[in-house]
Amino acid sequence: MEKLKNILVVGGTHGNEMTGISLLQYWANSDYLQRPGLNIDTLLANPQATQLGRRYVDYDLNRAFTKELLDKSNETRSEDIKRAREIAEIYSENGSKFWPDMVIDIHNSTANMGQTLIINNPHPITRSIVAHLAQEFPMVKILQEPILGDNNPYLASIGKLDLTVEIGPQPHGTLNADLFFSTEKLVQRVLDLIVQYNENKLPLASLETTYFEQSDAVDYPRNSKHELDAMIHPNLWGADYQALEKGAKVFVDFSGNAIQWKGETTWPCFIGEVAYLEKKIAFIKTDKKTALW
Amino acid sequence: MEKLKNILVVGGTHGNEMTGISLLQYWANSDYLQRPGLNIDTLLANPQATQLGRRYVDYDLNRAFTKELLDKSNETRSEDIKRAREIAEIYSENGSKFWPDMVIDIHNSTANMGQTLIINNPHPITRSIVAHLAQEFPMVKILQEPILGDNNPYLASIGKLDLTVEIGPQPHGTLNADLFFSTEKLVQRVLDLIVQYNENKLPLASLETTYFEQSDAVDYPRNSKHELDAMIHPNLWGADYQALEKGAKVFVDFSGNAIQWKGETTWPCFIGEVAYLEKKIAFIKTDKKTALW
Repeated sequence: MEKLKNILVVGGTHGNEMTGISLLQYWANSDYLQRPGLNIDTLLANPQATQLGRRYVDYDLNRAFTKELLDKSNETRSEDIKRAREIAEIYSENGSKFWPDMVIDIHNSTANMGQTLIINNPHPITRSIVAHLAQEFPMVKILQEPILGDNNPYLASIGKLDLTVEIGPQPHGTLNADLFFSTEKLVQRVLDLIVQYNENKLPLASLETTYFEQSDAVDYPRNSKHELDAMIHPNLWGADYQALEKGAKVFVDFSGNAIQWKGETTWPCFIGEVAYLEKKIAFIKTDKKTALW
Repeated sequence: MEKLKNILVVGGTHGNEMTGISLLQYWANSDYLQRPGLNIDTLLANPQATQLGRRYVDYDLNRAFTKELLDKSNETRSEDIKRAREIAEIYSENGSKFWPDMVIDIHNSTANMGQTLIINNPHPITRSIVAHLAQEFPMVKILQEPILGDNNPYLASIGKLDLTVEIGPQPHGTLNADLFFSTEKLVQRVLDLIVQYNENKLPLASLETTYFEQSDAVDYPRNSKHELDAMIHPNLWGADYQALEKGAKVFVDFSGNAIQWKGETTWPCFIGEVAYLEKKIAFIKTDKKTALW
Protein backbone atom coordinates (compact mmCIF):
# COMPACT_ATOMS: atom_id res chain seq x y z
CA MET A 1 0.00 0.00 0.00
CA GLU A 2 1.12 3.51 -0.72
CA LYS A 3 1.08 6.26 1.84
CA LEU A 4 -2.03 6.73 3.98
CA LYS A 5 -3.52 10.11 3.30
CA ASN A 6 -7.27 10.25 3.86
CA ILE A 7 -8.22 9.40 7.44
CA LEU A 8 -11.74 9.34 8.85
CA VAL A 9 -12.20 9.56 12.64
CA VAL A 10 -15.70 8.51 13.72
CA GLY A 11 -17.70 8.91 16.94
CA GLY A 12 -21.35 8.33 17.74
CA THR A 13 -21.84 5.28 15.53
CA HIS A 14 -23.84 4.28 18.59
CA GLY A 15 -25.70 7.30 19.91
CA ASN A 16 -25.20 6.55 23.62
CA GLU A 17 -21.44 5.92 23.51
CA MET A 18 -20.15 9.20 24.84
CA THR A 19 -16.34 9.01 24.61
CA GLY A 20 -16.28 9.35 20.82
CA ILE A 21 -19.17 11.83 20.74
CA SER A 22 -17.46 14.10 23.28
CA LEU A 23 -14.06 13.75 21.60
CA LEU A 24 -15.60 15.00 18.34
CA GLN A 25 -17.07 17.98 20.20
CA TYR A 26 -13.65 18.69 21.71
CA TRP A 27 -11.71 18.32 18.45
CA ALA A 28 -14.19 20.54 16.59
CA ASN A 29 -12.88 23.48 18.61
CA SER A 30 -9.20 22.74 18.05
CA ASP A 31 -6.59 21.79 15.47
CA TYR A 32 -5.37 18.81 17.49
CA LEU A 33 -6.17 16.36 14.73
CA GLN A 34 -4.01 18.10 12.12
CA ARG A 35 -0.97 16.18 10.90
CA PRO A 36 1.51 16.90 8.10
CA GLY A 37 0.51 15.08 4.91
CA LEU A 38 -2.79 13.81 6.31
CA ASN A 39 -6.28 14.79 5.28
CA ILE A 40 -8.28 14.06 8.44
CA ASP A 41 -12.06 14.26 8.58
CA THR A 42 -14.31 13.67 11.59
CA LEU A 43 -17.80 12.23 11.44
CA LEU A 44 -20.63 12.07 13.98
CA ALA A 45 -22.01 8.89 12.45
CA ASN A 46 -25.50 8.72 13.91
CA PRO A 47 -26.72 12.19 14.90
CA GLN A 48 -30.36 11.03 15.23
CA ALA A 49 -29.50 8.30 17.73
CA THR A 50 -27.12 10.68 19.52
CA GLN A 51 -29.97 13.15 19.89
CA LEU A 52 -32.15 10.38 21.33
CA GLY A 53 -29.33 9.13 23.58
CA ARG A 54 -29.94 5.64 22.24
CA ARG A 55 -27.71 3.04 20.58
CA TYR A 56 -29.62 3.39 17.31
CA VAL A 57 -32.97 4.54 15.97
CA ASP A 58 -34.39 1.33 14.52
CA TYR A 59 -31.45 -0.80 13.33
CA ASP A 60 -27.90 -1.14 14.65
CA LEU A 61 -25.94 1.24 12.37
CA ASN A 62 -22.76 -0.71 13.06
CA ARG A 63 -24.35 -3.81 11.51
CA ALA A 64 -25.75 -2.00 8.47
CA PHE A 65 -22.74 -1.87 6.13
CA THR A 66 -23.35 -5.19 4.39
CA LYS A 67 -23.64 -5.28 0.59
CA GLU A 68 -27.32 -6.16 0.81
CA LEU A 69 -28.33 -3.40 3.22
CA LEU A 70 -26.31 -0.79 1.34
CA ASP A 71 -27.87 -1.80 -1.98
CA LYS A 72 -30.19 1.06 -2.92
CA SER A 73 -32.37 -1.12 -5.09
CA ASN A 74 -33.65 -2.66 -1.83
CA GLU A 75 -36.22 -0.27 -0.40
CA THR A 76 -35.85 0.58 3.29
CA ARG A 77 -37.75 2.60 5.86
CA SER A 78 -34.95 2.28 8.42
CA GLU A 79 -33.43 5.61 9.42
CA ASP A 80 -30.18 3.86 10.35
CA ILE A 81 -29.89 1.96 7.08
CA LYS A 82 -30.57 5.19 5.17
CA ARG A 83 -27.80 6.82 7.19
CA ALA A 84 -25.43 3.90 6.45
CA ARG A 85 -26.06 4.38 2.70
CA GLU A 86 -25.41 8.11 3.02
CA ILE A 87 -22.11 7.57 4.87
CA ALA A 88 -20.97 4.84 2.47
CA GLU A 89 -21.67 7.17 -0.46
CA ILE A 90 -19.98 10.28 0.96
CA TYR A 91 -16.86 8.31 1.90
CA SER A 92 -16.48 6.30 -1.30
CA GLU A 93 -14.22 6.46 -4.33
CA ASN A 94 -16.55 8.84 -6.15
CA GLY A 95 -18.15 10.41 -3.10
CA SER A 96 -18.23 14.07 -2.09
CA LYS A 97 -15.47 13.56 0.52
CA PHE A 98 -12.92 10.77 0.04
CA TRP A 99 -12.45 7.00 0.18
CA PRO A 100 -10.72 6.64 3.56
CA ASP A 101 -7.32 4.98 3.64
CA MET A 102 -8.14 4.28 7.28
CA VAL A 103 -11.29 4.59 9.39
CA ILE A 104 -10.85 4.97 13.16
CA ASP A 105 -14.24 4.33 14.81
CA ILE A 106 -14.53 5.03 18.56
CA HIS A 107 -16.93 2.92 20.65
CA ASN A 108 -17.75 2.28 24.32
CA SER A 109 -18.63 -0.88 26.17
CA THR A 110 -20.14 -1.52 29.61
CA ALA A 111 -17.67 -4.42 29.80
CA ASN A 112 -14.15 -4.12 31.17
CA MET A 113 -12.61 -3.82 27.67
CA GLY A 114 -9.89 -1.29 28.58
CA GLN A 115 -8.82 0.22 25.26
CA THR A 116 -9.46 -2.64 22.88
CA LEU A 117 -8.25 -2.13 19.32
CA ILE A 118 -10.39 -4.23 17.00
CA ILE A 119 -9.17 -5.18 13.53
CA ASN A 120 -11.30 -6.88 10.92
CA ASN A 121 -9.08 -6.34 7.92
CA PRO A 122 -5.74 -7.78 9.04
CA HIS A 123 -3.38 -5.55 7.06
CA PRO A 124 0.30 -5.35 8.11
CA ILE A 125 0.08 -1.55 8.52
CA THR A 126 -2.85 -1.75 10.94
CA ARG A 127 -1.18 -4.60 12.78
CA SER A 128 2.02 -2.63 13.20
CA ILE A 129 0.14 0.43 14.45
CA VAL A 130 -1.82 -1.52 17.09
CA ALA A 131 1.29 -3.48 18.09
CA HIS A 132 3.08 -0.22 18.82
CA LEU A 133 0.08 1.11 20.78
CA ALA A 134 -0.03 -2.08 22.87
CA GLN A 135 3.60 -1.45 23.81
CA GLU A 136 2.95 2.16 24.75
CA PHE A 137 -0.43 2.03 26.54
CA PRO A 138 -1.03 -0.29 29.52
CA MET A 139 -4.81 -0.47 28.92
CA VAL A 140 -4.55 -1.56 25.26
CA LYS A 141 -5.71 -5.02 24.17
CA ILE A 142 -5.80 -6.21 20.56
CA LEU A 143 -8.82 -8.10 19.24
CA GLN A 144 -8.56 -9.72 15.80
CA GLU A 145 -12.07 -10.41 14.56
CA PRO A 146 -12.92 -12.91 11.85
CA ILE A 147 -12.09 -11.64 8.37
CA LEU A 148 -15.45 -10.73 6.85
CA GLY A 149 -14.13 -9.33 3.57
CA ASP A 150 -16.70 -7.87 1.24
CA ASN A 151 -19.67 -8.40 3.48
CA ASN A 152 -18.48 -6.75 6.66
CA PRO A 153 -21.40 -5.05 8.50
CA TYR A 154 -19.25 -2.61 10.50
CA LEU A 155 -18.94 1.08 9.66
CA ALA A 156 -15.13 0.95 9.72
CA SER A 157 -15.27 -1.44 6.76
CA ILE A 158 -15.86 1.50 4.39
CA GLY A 159 -12.14 2.29 4.75
CA LYS A 160 -9.29 0.52 2.98
CA LEU A 161 -8.00 -0.13 6.50
CA ASP A 162 -10.15 -0.32 9.62
CA LEU A 163 -9.52 0.28 13.29
CA THR A 164 -12.34 0.14 15.84
CA VAL A 165 -11.53 1.45 19.31
CA GLU A 166 -13.65 -0.08 22.09
CA ILE A 167 -13.39 1.75 25.43
CA GLY A 168 -14.70 0.43 28.75
CA PRO A 169 -16.07 -0.09 31.25
CA GLN A 170 -18.41 2.86 30.88
CA PRO A 171 -22.20 2.75 31.29
CA HIS A 172 -23.76 3.92 28.03
CA GLY A 173 -24.75 7.58 28.20
CA THR A 174 -22.11 8.41 30.82
CA LEU A 175 -18.68 9.92 30.33
CA ASN A 176 -15.69 8.79 32.39
CA ALA A 177 -13.04 11.54 32.38
CA ASP A 178 -10.07 9.16 32.79
CA LEU A 179 -11.22 7.15 29.77
CA PHE A 180 -11.88 10.36 27.80
CA PHE A 181 -8.33 11.68 28.28
CA SER A 182 -6.57 8.33 27.77
CA THR A 183 -8.56 7.75 24.56
CA GLU A 184 -7.71 11.24 23.33
CA LYS A 185 -4.01 10.38 23.75
CA LEU A 186 -4.50 7.01 22.06
CA VAL A 187 -6.14 8.43 18.93
CA GLN A 188 -3.48 11.13 18.72
CA ARG A 189 -0.81 8.38 18.75
CA VAL A 190 -2.61 6.49 15.97
CA LEU A 191 -2.28 9.59 13.81
CA ASP A 192 1.40 10.00 14.80
CA LEU A 193 2.08 6.39 13.84
CA ILE A 194 0.35 6.87 10.46
CA VAL A 195 2.68 9.83 9.82
CA GLN A 196 5.64 7.64 10.87
CA TYR A 197 4.52 4.96 8.42
CA ASN A 198 4.27 7.54 5.64
CA GLU A 199 7.84 8.63 6.47
CA ASN A 200 9.02 5.01 6.29
CA LYS A 201 9.77 5.09 10.02
CA LEU A 202 7.29 2.43 11.08
CA PRO A 203 8.84 -1.03 10.63
CA LEU A 204 6.19 -3.67 9.84
CA ALA A 205 6.04 -7.13 11.44
CA SER A 206 8.75 -6.16 13.90
CA LEU A 207 7.12 -6.48 17.33
CA GLU A 208 6.38 -9.68 19.26
CA THR A 209 2.70 -8.98 19.99
CA THR A 210 0.01 -10.65 22.06
CA TYR A 211 -3.43 -10.47 20.51
CA PHE A 212 -6.81 -12.12 21.03
CA GLU A 213 -8.47 -13.86 18.09
CA GLN A 214 -12.24 -13.92 18.29
CA SER A 215 -13.97 -17.26 17.81
CA ASP A 216 -17.68 -17.60 18.62
CA ALA A 217 -20.10 -16.06 21.10
CA VAL A 218 -21.68 -17.61 24.21
CA ASP A 219 -25.29 -16.91 25.27
CA TYR A 220 -26.69 -16.81 28.82
CA PRO A 221 -28.52 -19.86 30.18
CA ARG A 222 -32.22 -19.33 29.45
CA ASN A 223 -35.45 -20.83 30.75
CA SER A 224 -38.23 -22.30 28.63
CA LYS A 225 -39.62 -18.78 28.03
CA HIS A 226 -36.20 -17.71 26.69
CA GLU A 227 -35.73 -15.40 29.70
CA LEU A 228 -32.30 -15.16 31.32
CA ASP A 229 -32.02 -17.95 33.85
CA ALA A 230 -28.60 -16.94 35.21
CA MET A 231 -26.16 -14.07 35.52
CA ILE A 232 -22.45 -13.68 34.85
CA HIS A 233 -20.72 -15.25 37.88
CA PRO A 234 -19.02 -12.64 40.13
CA ASN A 235 -15.67 -14.38 39.47
CA LEU A 236 -16.06 -13.68 35.74
CA TRP A 237 -17.54 -10.15 36.06
CA GLY A 238 -14.93 -7.68 34.79
CA ALA A 239 -12.43 -10.46 34.05
CA ASP A 240 -12.23 -9.68 30.32
CA TYR A 241 -9.18 -11.19 28.56
CA GLN A 242 -8.32 -13.37 31.56
CA ALA A 243 -8.15 -17.13 30.97
CA LEU A 244 -11.41 -18.96 31.65
CA GLU A 245 -10.43 -22.57 32.34
CA LYS A 246 -12.56 -25.70 32.14
CA GLY A 247 -14.39 -26.11 35.48
CA ALA A 248 -14.25 -22.40 36.44
CA LYS A 249 -17.47 -20.67 37.49
CA VAL A 250 -18.97 -18.83 34.53
CA PHE A 251 -22.64 -18.18 35.42
CA VAL A 252 -24.72 -18.24 38.60
CA ASP A 253 -28.47 -18.88 38.66
CA PHE A 254 -30.89 -16.79 40.73
CA SER A 255 -30.82 -19.39 43.53
CA GLY A 256 -27.05 -18.98 43.80
CA ASN A 257 -25.99 -22.20 42.07
CA ALA A 258 -22.77 -21.72 40.11
CA ILE A 259 -22.51 -23.05 36.56
CA GLN A 260 -19.10 -24.30 35.44
CA TRP A 261 -17.34 -23.70 32.14
CA LYS A 262 -17.35 -26.93 30.17
CA GLY A 263 -15.38 -25.76 27.14
CA GLU A 264 -11.64 -25.55 26.57
CA THR A 265 -9.68 -22.60 27.94
CA THR A 266 -10.78 -19.31 26.42
CA TRP A 267 -10.07 -15.61 26.99
CA PRO A 268 -13.53 -14.01 27.09
CA CYS A 269 -14.26 -10.38 26.36
CA PHE A 270 -17.36 -8.15 26.10
CA ILE A 271 -18.41 -9.92 29.34
CA GLY A 272 -21.94 -8.81 30.24
CA GLU A 273 -22.00 -6.05 27.58
CA VAL A 274 -25.55 -4.72 27.77
CA ALA A 275 -25.95 -4.03 24.04
CA TYR A 276 -25.21 -7.68 23.28
CA LEU A 277 -28.20 -8.95 25.27
CA GLU A 278 -30.40 -8.47 22.20
CA LYS A 279 -27.83 -10.38 20.16
CA LYS A 280 -28.01 -13.23 22.73
CA ILE A 281 -24.37 -12.84 23.70
CA ALA A 282 -23.14 -13.11 27.31
CA PHE A 283 -19.51 -12.88 26.18
CA ILE A 284 -17.24 -13.40 23.18
CA LYS A 285 -14.72 -16.24 23.16
CA THR A 286 -11.19 -15.55 22.01
CA ASP A 287 -7.90 -17.41 21.70
CA LYS A 288 -4.77 -15.72 23.03
CA LYS A 289 -2.00 -15.68 20.43
CA THR A 290 1.42 -14.21 19.87
CA ALA A 291 3.00 -13.19 16.57
CA LEU A 292 5.31 -10.65 14.95
CA TRP A 293 3.04 -7.68 14.17
CA MET B 1 -50.03 3.38 63.12
CA GLU B 2 -51.48 -0.09 63.62
CA LYS B 3 -49.82 -3.21 62.33
CA LEU B 4 -48.47 -3.27 58.78
CA LYS B 5 -50.29 -5.90 56.79
CA ASN B 6 -50.46 -5.13 53.07
CA ILE B 7 -47.00 -4.86 51.51
CA LEU B 8 -46.26 -4.15 47.85
CA VAL B 9 -42.82 -5.06 46.48
CA VAL B 10 -42.13 -3.36 43.13
CA GLY B 11 -39.54 -3.89 40.39
CA GLY B 12 -39.28 -2.53 36.86
CA THR B 13 -40.62 0.93 37.61
CA HIS B 14 -37.80 1.74 35.20
CA GLY B 15 -37.69 -0.87 32.46
CA ASN B 16 -33.89 -1.11 32.22
CA GLU B 17 -33.17 -1.53 35.94
CA MET B 18 -32.57 -5.23 36.12
CA THR B 19 -32.07 -6.03 39.82
CA GLY B 20 -35.75 -5.54 40.71
CA ILE B 21 -37.00 -7.06 37.46
CA SER B 22 -34.91 -10.21 37.96
CA LEU B 23 -35.81 -10.46 41.67
CA LEU B 24 -39.51 -10.49 40.72
CA GLN B 25 -38.81 -13.27 38.20
CA TYR B 26 -36.98 -15.21 40.95
CA TRP B 27 -39.63 -14.68 43.63
CA ALA B 28 -42.43 -15.68 41.24
CA ASN B 29 -41.08 -19.23 41.37
CA SER B 30 -40.76 -19.43 45.14
CA ASP B 31 -42.49 -18.67 48.43
CA TYR B 32 -39.54 -16.65 49.75
CA LEU B 33 -41.65 -13.53 50.18
CA GLN B 34 -44.21 -15.17 52.47
CA ARG B 35 -44.29 -13.93 56.07
CA PRO B 36 -46.73 -14.65 58.94
CA GLY B 37 -49.41 -11.99 59.14
CA LEU B 38 -48.32 -10.20 55.96
CA ASN B 39 -50.17 -9.96 52.68
CA ILE B 40 -47.34 -9.42 50.19
CA ASP B 41 -47.91 -8.61 46.53
CA THR B 42 -45.29 -8.11 43.83
CA LEU B 43 -45.66 -5.77 40.87
CA LEU B 44 -43.71 -5.41 37.62
CA ALA B 45 -44.53 -1.72 37.39
CA ASN B 46 -43.72 -0.94 33.76
CA PRO B 47 -43.94 -4.09 31.61
CA GLN B 48 -43.95 -2.08 28.35
CA ALA B 49 -40.70 -0.29 29.17
CA THR B 50 -39.23 -3.56 30.47
CA GLN B 51 -40.05 -5.20 27.14
CA LEU B 52 -38.33 -2.31 25.34
CA GLY B 53 -35.36 -2.40 27.73
CA ARG B 54 -35.77 1.33 28.25
CA ARG B 55 -36.25 3.53 31.33
CA TYR B 56 -39.78 4.43 30.22
CA VAL B 57 -41.94 4.54 27.10
CA ASP B 58 -42.70 8.27 26.80
CA TYR B 59 -42.73 9.72 30.35
CA ASP B 60 -40.77 8.78 33.48
CA LEU B 61 -43.24 6.52 35.36
CA ASN B 62 -41.48 7.35 38.62
CA ARG B 63 -42.39 11.01 38.17
CA ALA B 64 -46.00 10.36 37.16
CA PHE B 65 -47.72 9.93 40.54
CA THR B 66 -48.60 13.59 41.10
CA LYS B 67 -52.19 14.59 41.74
CA GLU B 68 -52.40 16.38 38.42
CA LEU B 69 -51.04 13.52 36.28
CA LEU B 70 -53.17 10.93 38.06
CA ASP B 71 -56.32 13.04 37.58
CA LYS B 72 -58.39 11.19 34.99
CA SER B 73 -60.24 14.31 33.93
CA ASN B 74 -56.95 15.39 32.27
CA GLU B 75 -56.69 13.54 28.98
CA THR B 76 -53.37 11.83 28.25
CA ARG B 77 -51.81 9.89 25.42
CA SER B 78 -48.83 8.86 27.52
CA GLU B 79 -48.52 5.11 28.01
CA ASP B 80 -46.59 5.66 31.24
CA ILE B 81 -49.12 8.08 32.71
CA LYS B 82 -51.92 5.65 31.81
CA ARG B 83 -49.97 2.94 33.60
CA ALA B 84 -49.47 5.19 36.65
CA ARG B 85 -53.25 5.73 36.84
CA GLU B 86 -53.84 1.99 36.56
CA ILE B 87 -51.37 1.19 39.36
CA ALA B 88 -52.70 3.98 41.61
CA GLU B 89 -56.22 2.62 41.14
CA ILE B 90 -55.44 -1.07 41.72
CA TYR B 91 -53.46 -0.27 44.88
CA SER B 92 -55.88 2.21 46.44
CA GLU B 93 -58.39 2.08 49.28
CA ASN B 94 -61.19 0.92 46.97
CA GLY B 95 -59.00 -0.79 44.37
CA SER B 96 -59.04 -4.41 43.26
CA LYS B 97 -55.95 -5.25 45.37
CA PHE B 98 -55.20 -3.22 48.50
CA TRP B 99 -53.96 0.14 49.74
CA PRO B 100 -50.36 -0.75 50.67
CA ASP B 101 -49.23 -0.13 54.23
CA MET B 102 -45.76 -0.03 52.73
CA VAL B 103 -44.38 0.06 49.18
CA ILE B 104 -40.84 -1.23 48.63
CA ASP B 105 -39.70 -0.07 45.17
CA ILE B 106 -36.40 -1.48 43.86
CA HIS B 107 -34.27 0.69 41.54
CA ASN B 108 -30.77 0.72 40.04
CA SER B 109 -28.30 3.52 39.44
CA THR B 110 -25.15 3.77 37.35
CA ALA B 111 -23.74 5.78 40.27
CA ASN B 112 -21.91 4.23 43.22
CA MET B 113 -25.03 4.31 45.43
CA GLY B 114 -24.39 1.01 47.25
CA GLN B 115 -27.76 0.01 48.70
CA THR B 116 -29.34 3.38 49.30
CA LEU B 117 -32.63 3.37 51.18
CA ILE B 118 -34.63 6.42 50.16
CA ILE B 119 -37.43 7.73 52.35
CA ASN B 120 -39.81 10.48 51.33
CA ASN B 121 -42.41 10.03 54.02
CA PRO B 122 -40.38 10.21 57.25
CA HIS B 123 -42.44 7.93 59.45
CA PRO B 124 -40.86 6.51 62.65
CA ILE B 125 -41.54 2.92 61.52
CA THR B 126 -39.73 3.38 58.21
CA ARG B 127 -36.91 5.19 59.99
CA SER B 128 -36.48 2.38 62.46
CA ILE B 129 -36.46 -0.25 59.70
CA VAL B 130 -33.78 1.52 57.66
CA ALA B 131 -31.75 2.30 60.80
CA HIS B 132 -31.64 -1.41 61.61
CA LEU B 133 -30.67 -2.26 58.02
CA ALA B 134 -27.86 0.31 58.10
CA GLN B 135 -26.48 -1.48 61.18
CA GLU B 136 -26.69 -4.89 59.55
CA PHE B 137 -25.57 -4.23 55.95
CA PRO B 138 -22.22 -2.57 55.18
CA MET B 139 -23.41 -1.24 51.79
CA VAL B 140 -26.52 0.52 53.14
CA LYS B 141 -26.81 4.31 53.06
CA ILE B 142 -29.93 6.25 54.09
CA LEU B 143 -31.19 9.13 51.96
CA GLN B 144 -33.95 11.33 53.38
CA GLU B 145 -35.56 13.19 50.50
CA PRO B 146 -37.58 16.36 50.89
CA ILE B 147 -41.08 15.70 52.24
CA LEU B 148 -43.36 16.09 49.21
CA GLY B 149 -46.59 15.15 50.92
CA ASP B 150 -49.66 14.99 48.74
CA ASN B 151 -47.92 15.80 45.51
CA ASN B 152 -45.14 13.23 45.50
CA PRO B 153 -44.38 12.04 41.94
CA TYR B 154 -42.77 8.71 42.96
CA LEU B 155 -44.53 5.36 42.66
CA ALA B 156 -43.76 4.44 46.27
CA SER B 157 -45.95 7.37 47.37
CA ILE B 158 -49.08 5.29 46.72
CA GLY B 159 -48.31 3.47 49.99
CA LYS B 160 -49.01 4.73 53.49
CA LEU B 161 -45.26 4.23 54.03
CA ASP B 162 -42.63 4.31 51.29
CA LEU B 163 -39.20 2.76 50.88
CA THR B 164 -37.25 3.12 47.64
CA VAL B 165 -34.18 0.90 47.30
CA GLU B 166 -31.52 2.31 44.95
CA ILE B 167 -28.80 -0.20 44.00
CA GLY B 168 -25.53 0.67 42.27
CA PRO B 169 -23.28 0.98 40.50
CA GLN B 170 -24.82 -1.08 37.72
CA PRO B 171 -25.08 -0.03 34.05
CA HIS B 172 -28.75 0.00 33.10
CA GLY B 173 -29.76 -3.18 31.31
CA THR B 174 -27.06 -5.26 33.01
CA LEU B 175 -27.31 -7.51 36.06
CA ASN B 176 -24.54 -7.71 38.64
CA ALA B 177 -24.84 -10.99 40.54
CA ASP B 178 -23.28 -9.67 43.77
CA LEU B 179 -25.79 -6.80 43.83
CA PHE B 180 -28.64 -9.21 42.99
CA PHE B 181 -27.92 -11.51 45.94
CA SER B 182 -27.20 -8.75 48.46
CA THR B 183 -30.42 -6.96 47.47
CA GLU B 184 -32.37 -10.19 47.81
CA LYS B 185 -31.10 -10.48 51.40
CA LEU B 186 -31.88 -6.81 52.07
CA VAL B 187 -35.52 -7.02 50.96
CA GLN B 188 -35.98 -10.23 52.94
CA ARG B 189 -34.72 -8.38 56.04
CA VAL B 190 -37.14 -5.50 55.43
CA LEU B 191 -39.99 -8.03 55.58
CA ASP B 192 -38.52 -9.63 58.74
CA LEU B 193 -38.33 -6.22 60.39
CA ILE B 194 -41.95 -5.47 59.46
CA VAL B 195 -42.94 -8.72 61.16
CA GLN B 196 -40.85 -7.71 64.20
CA TYR B 197 -42.63 -4.35 64.29
CA ASN B 198 -46.01 -6.11 64.16
CA GLU B 199 -44.89 -8.27 67.11
CA ASN B 200 -43.87 -5.15 69.07
CA LYS B 201 -40.24 -6.25 68.87
CA LEU B 202 -38.94 -3.31 66.85
CA PRO B 203 -38.16 -0.41 69.17
CA LEU B 204 -38.64 2.96 67.43
CA ALA B 205 -36.23 5.90 67.69
CA SER B 206 -33.68 3.70 69.43
CA LEU B 207 -30.64 3.69 67.15
CA GLU B 208 -28.08 6.48 66.69
CA THR B 209 -28.21 6.66 62.88
CA THR B 210 -26.27 8.50 60.21
CA TYR B 211 -28.38 9.61 57.27
CA PHE B 212 -28.05 11.96 54.33
CA GLU B 213 -30.64 14.68 53.85
CA GLN B 214 -31.11 15.71 50.24
CA SER B 215 -30.93 19.42 49.43
CA ASP B 216 -30.74 20.57 45.81
CA ALA B 217 -29.22 19.25 42.59
CA VAL B 218 -26.14 20.45 40.69
CA ASP B 219 -25.97 20.54 36.86
CA TYR B 220 -22.88 20.06 34.67
CA PRO B 221 -21.08 23.11 33.30
CA ARG B 222 -22.56 23.78 29.85
CA ASN B 223 -21.49 25.79 26.82
CA SER B 224 -23.58 28.39 25.01
CA LYS B 225 -25.35 25.60 23.08
CA HIS B 226 -26.32 23.94 26.40
CA GLU B 227 -24.01 21.02 25.60
CA LEU B 228 -21.95 19.50 28.41
CA ASP B 229 -18.75 21.47 28.69
CA ALA B 230 -17.14 19.31 31.37
CA MET B 231 -17.18 15.87 32.99
CA ILE B 232 -17.29 14.64 36.58
CA HIS B 233 -13.69 14.99 37.82
CA PRO B 234 -11.97 11.59 38.32
CA ASN B 235 -11.54 12.46 42.03
CA LEU B 236 -15.32 12.71 42.40
CA TRP B 237 -16.23 9.73 40.17
CA GLY B 238 -17.66 6.99 42.39
CA ALA B 239 -17.16 9.10 45.55
CA ASP B 240 -20.86 9.11 46.45
CA TYR B 241 -21.58 10.08 50.08
CA GLN B 242 -18.00 11.25 50.66
CA ALA B 243 -17.51 14.84 51.80
CA LEU B 244 -16.94 17.31 48.94
CA GLU B 245 -15.13 20.27 50.49
CA LYS B 246 -14.84 23.81 49.20
CA GLY B 247 -11.89 23.97 46.78
CA ALA B 248 -11.96 20.26 45.87
CA LYS B 249 -12.00 19.26 42.19
CA VAL B 250 -15.56 18.60 41.07
CA PHE B 251 -15.55 18.79 37.24
CA VAL B 252 -12.88 18.72 34.52
CA ASP B 253 -13.31 20.33 31.11
CA PHE B 254 -12.35 18.59 27.87
CA SER B 255 -8.98 20.37 27.83
CA GLY B 256 -8.15 18.93 31.24
CA ASN B 257 -8.75 22.03 33.37
CA ALA B 258 -10.17 21.13 36.78
CA ILE B 259 -13.12 23.08 38.15
CA GLN B 260 -13.25 23.57 41.92
CA TRP B 261 -16.23 23.24 44.25
CA LYS B 262 -17.20 26.70 45.39
CA GLY B 263 -20.06 25.75 47.75
CA GLU B 264 -19.98 24.64 51.36
CA THR B 265 -19.16 21.05 52.25
CA THR B 266 -21.68 18.61 50.84
CA TRP B 267 -22.02 14.81 50.59
CA PRO B 268 -22.97 14.24 46.93
CA CYS B 269 -24.77 11.18 45.61
CA PHE B 270 -26.17 9.99 42.25
CA ILE B 271 -22.82 11.23 40.89
CA GLY B 272 -22.88 10.96 37.08
CA GLU B 273 -26.16 8.97 37.06
CA VAL B 274 -26.97 8.64 33.37
CA ALA B 275 -30.74 8.91 33.72
CA TYR B 276 -30.35 12.30 35.41
CA LEU B 277 -28.66 13.87 32.37
CA GLU B 278 -32.07 14.69 30.90
CA LYS B 279 -33.02 16.23 34.25
CA LYS B 280 -29.86 18.39 34.10
CA ILE B 281 -28.40 16.82 37.22
CA ALA B 282 -24.69 15.97 37.60
CA PHE B 283 -25.18 14.99 41.25
CA ILE B 284 -27.50 15.52 44.22
CA LYS B 285 -26.29 17.50 47.22
CA THR B 286 -26.95 16.16 50.69
CA ASP B 287 -26.16 17.07 54.30
CA LYS B 288 -24.82 14.34 56.58
CA LYS B 289 -26.79 14.13 59.81
CA THR B 290 -27.14 11.93 62.85
CA ALA B 291 -30.26 11.28 64.91
CA LEU B 292 -32.07 8.62 66.92
CA TRP B 293 -34.03 6.63 64.33
